[in-house]
Amino acid sequence: MAVVLGDNQYGKAETRLVRIDRTGGRHRITDLSVTTTLSGDLAATHLTGDNTGVLPTDSQKNAVFAFARDGVGEIEDFALRLARHFVDSQPAIGRARVGIEQYGWDRIGLDGGTAPHSFVRTAGTRTATATYDGSTAQVVSGVTDLVVLNTTGSSFAGYVRDPYTTLPEAADRILATALTARWRHATDTAGDRTGDWANSHRESVRHLLEAFADTDSKSLQQTLYAMGQRVLDHRPEVVEVRLSLPNRHHFLVDLAPFGLDNPGEVFFAADRPYGLIEGTVLRDDAPPAGLAWW
Amino acid sequence: MAVVLGDNQYGKAETRLVRIDRTGGRHRITDLSVTTTLSGDLAATHLTGDNTGVLPTDSQKNAVFAFARDGVGEIEDFALRLARHFVDSQPAIGRARVGIEQYGWDRIGLDGGTAPHSFVRTAGTRTATATYDGSTAQVVSGVTDLVVLNTTGSSFAGYVRDPYTTLPEAADRILATALTARWRHATDTAGDRTGDWANSHRESVRHLLEAFADTDSKSLQQTLYAMGQRVLDHRPEVVEVRLSLPNRHHFLVDLAPFGLDNPGEVFFAADRPYGLIEGTVLRDDAPPAGLAWW
Amino acid sequence: MAVVLGDNQYGKAETRLVRIDRTGGRHRITDLSVTTTLSGDLAATHLTGDNTGVLPTDSQKNAVFAFARDGVGEIEDFALRLARHFVDSQPAIGRARVGIEQYGWDRIGLDGGTAPHSFVRTAGTRTATATYDGSTAQVVSGVTDLVVLNTTGSSFAGYVRDPYTTLPEAADRILATALTARWRHATDTAGDRTGDWANSHRESVRHLLEAFADTDSKSLQQTLYAMGQRVLDHRPEVVEVRLSLPNRHHFLVDLAPFGLDNPGEVFFAADRPYGLIEGTVLRDDAPPAGLAWW
Amino acid sequence: MAVVLGDNQYGKAETRLVRIDRTGGRHRITDLSVTTTLSGDLAATHLTGDNTGVLPTDSQKNAVFAFARDGVGEIEDFALRLARHFVDSQPAIGRARVGIEQYGWDRIGLDGGTAPHSFVRTAGTRTATATYDGSTAQVVSGVTDLVVLNTTGSSFAGYVRDPYTTLPEAADRILATALTARWRHATDTAGDRTGDWANSHRESVRHLLEAFADTDSKSLQQTLYAMGQRVLDHRPEVVEVRLSLPNRHHFLVDLAPFGLDNPGEVFFAADRPYGLIEGTVLRDDAPPAGLAWW
Repeated sequence: MAVVLGDNQYGKAETRLVRIDRTGGRHRITDLSVTTTLSGDLAATHLTGDNTGVLPTDSQKNAVFAFARDGVGEIEDFALRLARHFVDSQPAIGRARVGIEQYGWDRIGLDGGTAPHSFVRTAGTRTATATYDGSTAQVVSGVTDLVVLNTTGSSFAGYVRDPYTTLPEAADRILATALTARWRHATDTAGDRTGDWANSHRESVRHLLEAFADTDSKSLQQTLYAMGQRVLDHRPEVVEVRLSLPNRHHFLVDLAPFGLDNPGEVFFAADRPYGLIEGTVLRDDAPPAGLAWW
Repeated sequence: MAVVLGDNQYGKAETRLVRIDRTGGRHRITDLSVTTTLSGDLAATHLTGDNTGVLPTDSQKNAVFAFARDGVGEIEDFALRLARHFVDSQPAIGRARVGIEQYGWDRIGLDGGTAPHSFVRTAGTRTATATYDGSTAQVVSGVTDLVVLNTTGSSFAGYVRDPYTTLPEAADRILATALTARWRHATDTAGDRTGDWANSHRESVRHLLEAFADTDSKSLQQTLYAMGQRVLDHRPEVVEVRLSLPNRHHFLVDLAPFGLDNPGEVFFAADRPYGLIEGTVLRDDAPPAGLAWW
Repeated sequence: MAVVLGDNQYGKAETRLVRIDRTGGRHRITDLSVTTTLSGDLAATHLTGDNTGVLPTDSQKNAVFAFARDGVGEIEDFALRLARHFVDSQPAIGRARVGIEQYGWDRIGLDGGTAPHSFVRTAGTRTATATYDGSTAQVVSGVTDLVVLNTTGSSFAGYVRDPYTTLPEAADRILATALTARWRHATDTAGDRTGDWANSHRESVRHLLEAFADTDSKSLQQTLYAMGQRVLDHRPEVVEVRLSLPNRHHFLVDLAPFGLDNPGEVFFAADRPYGLIEGTVLRDDAPPAGLAWW
Repeated sequence: MAVVLGDNQYGKAETRLVRIDRTGGRHRITDLSVTTTLSGDLAATHLTGDNTGVLPTDSQKNAVFAFARDGVGEIEDFALRLARHFVDSQPAIGRARVGIEQYGWDRIGLDGGTAPHSFVRTAGTRTATATYDGSTAQVVSGVTDLVVLNTTGSSFAGYVRDPYTTLPEAADRILATALTARWRHATDTAGDRTGDWANSHRESVRHLLEAFADTDSKSLQQTLYAMGQRVLDHRPEVVEVRLSLPNRHHFLVDLAPFGLDNPGEVFFAADRPYGLIEGTVLRDDAPPAGLAWW
């Protein structure tokens, strides 16, 4: 028996990059958290502390800032640029993953219009991850921390009743979740694409929200599947959708001790524990995921 | 010398109440965190554990839920109802403060309009605090976690240079903050008012944002004062504004080592430390604050 | 009516200073978050953006680091040094408050002893705040995030039963809290003291914990008072203790649906809402607090 | 092309269970967060909302509490009991994973000894995950949020210098991380074991800390490997160690502008970005991991 090195990776996490585009009279803001992760022939630094193949994480951070000088563009493109750069320029690095979170900003209203250089943060975060191994690039787009709620149109009944089941069936309940969704683009598209990531993202989010809103839900799993299917039905560039849906329970409060009824009006929003429903919806002819979800 | 009991208070913090109004075809959602705080003749429980004057915090939570059965309305009114209830119904309680955070929700777009019972969380939190001492009621409205940023129109120069000063003057910098503002209503208004809290809040926030956007700022203190003044200039029902403005530093990245200039485009958004600017703007004839800021 | 500037202050929050003392073979670590707050003649920057009286928050941060070069010592002394520095060196500054959090570290065990320069973080945070107005210095020491729990010796009964009371009396309950305590030192002591802050802090915490542990508690208020009193009974240098005790509810789980009893063994630890008990215990001859709690 | 369901799972996250063992005069506390995750024949609920195979997450939570009635024991055993229960009792469930976090408590000192039923929270969290698929059980033990720091004995030099590299080499730096480590037990051991999980965990943590402390580190990767190797060298029941080590950068502050040197004494502890080093160390004859890391 011998002890050996297994899978390993390293990088710089959460580089907070803000870029201002001042061209024209109206500024634009790009607000990102960028995480770079590299993998490759890194046994020497692990085994002996020989760093001759190690690009410092500080240099990775610097590259993030320097690459932004020419403009960031859509985060999928920026992630691809960076991932390719690390693999193509570093002999020891065989794979790179660049994950980006983008925080949204709206213009502040002013004088019946909007201010040219003043902004207010919006909710929800757009995400993108690009991976590259020297030959194939994969792109996953997504959204996280998008909190949604249906006040009706959700039930939960007909489930298993084991000796630990006390939950009453619910014919009409609140359904709430903090949506994390990620969708994989077709590889050939991702590899070369300089296309319309912005429109693809906007439309995918729209389909997710619409499916959440208009699905008559008998379980959060059914809603999850409907959301993934809706994106795949409308966006040919997407081949796989992964969703993680915490079930943010809203419990109807028993007001009977106070002589009051409660016809679905007053709820307690609980923190923990919470249900957690996770699943994948994909095309049956989706190409292999390869490193996409690394 | 003797040891004595000084100021004290107790209550229930962060009761998470969600109320659904289902009247008509389009639902409405009220999403709150309610904190109740009571004070009064409570020496016995401190000194001997005699709880005959103590209304349990559990009962306070129950009251929050029960009172919501009739509707919440504007959070200022709901806070006032609860504060008065505790003082008026409990002999031992001389003062009550009810603080509420309200989380915003937008309707999800659907079919060219909006969904009737589906919602997505928005950024920023509306706040209200009502205090009541058996005779006088005070109301403070506010907003918190409203993150705003100007890409230009902000400078910082002409400051003290002591032996520890290395900061270069900035003729044009990013100015960003996570706004917490609270504004006190005239007491007589607050005491009886069943008026238009919603409009007062909406307009006050609009004035805060507009003043943030259109002030040519030589210091965050100047912006702070301008924001408070703007509200007081336009909202006669408001007599005092308190603001807490963390200065979320955005540092221009030095790209010269990489052969690049950086004309105000690429920034690093720092977490800590951060400047913290706090101040009060008020009318010189404002009535005494009394318990308003308790 | 005119709009005027009221109370205001500014400073640098959460400067994360780590100092290593390498004298001798065994290193020592001081790990701090320092917040400086200044107040004074600052109307000009608010009203016109004239910064001639404003010491930048960046300079305040620099002073924190520079002052640490000579050693930090006990955090009460370090806070006093800094507070005096800002007031004494800045004509516009009339008052300064320096608040410090200190994070604890233990040595890592090694070879039957402890490692000379390797550490592991411990729980709980020591705090100190010094205020100075040019003539009087005040010092408040404290602790925060110290989570404690009694498995027995706590009851809650005999309380008010109003129409919203459903809570059953508890003859024996879990009592748990995340302790925040701050204690004010006698002014003359604080002003000149170069004495034994370390011992005072260690003993005060010991008394707080012992009083929490050995008080037969009929309410969390009673425990709060006992904790404050214990410190005052044993530490003559302390004149006032303020405590904030969130009641971390542990609810006995009803296992009857599963054919099981539950004699005080299985609990659900709830997050929100939580009780919040706050109070002050002081000497009846305590000198005025002045700016101590600013 | 058709849309199909891919990998999916569901469960209850973060059930906060506290169990008190009152046997004998001195109580013991077990403080857990338990997450259950089930997978199996769940297509019906996703595709049509047919829940006939779905055990509610509420029932999973109830089982966690009910199983604790008999005692929790070591968390590895408790996780195994629960994982087997779900798979063996539910026809639709083919795989179960139960992940547990255990929070540590020390006794409060009292009267020269320790209090019999009073506790204070300690830092660091013990973890365990058990997976079961109807035939094979896997157990992974671990620790998280264990923050450690070396004041010397760490360097970083000899690395790649690309066009974005500005980092100066460090002959002697602070090395700090928040350790997350997980180690997989040999399958046959895990499947049947009712052995000494407590001792195995205690010793594994000791070896991790000792290797962190006594490794003369030329990179955090080298420290990572040394930590994993140390455990494998001493604990025959462990076959694989996975570590995730955020590099908590401590930057030496430049005090030269203030006329001061800084010989490794005054540091700024940065939040973001941070390096992130992750790796696996294992035996070359380790049995397949199967579902262990699911």
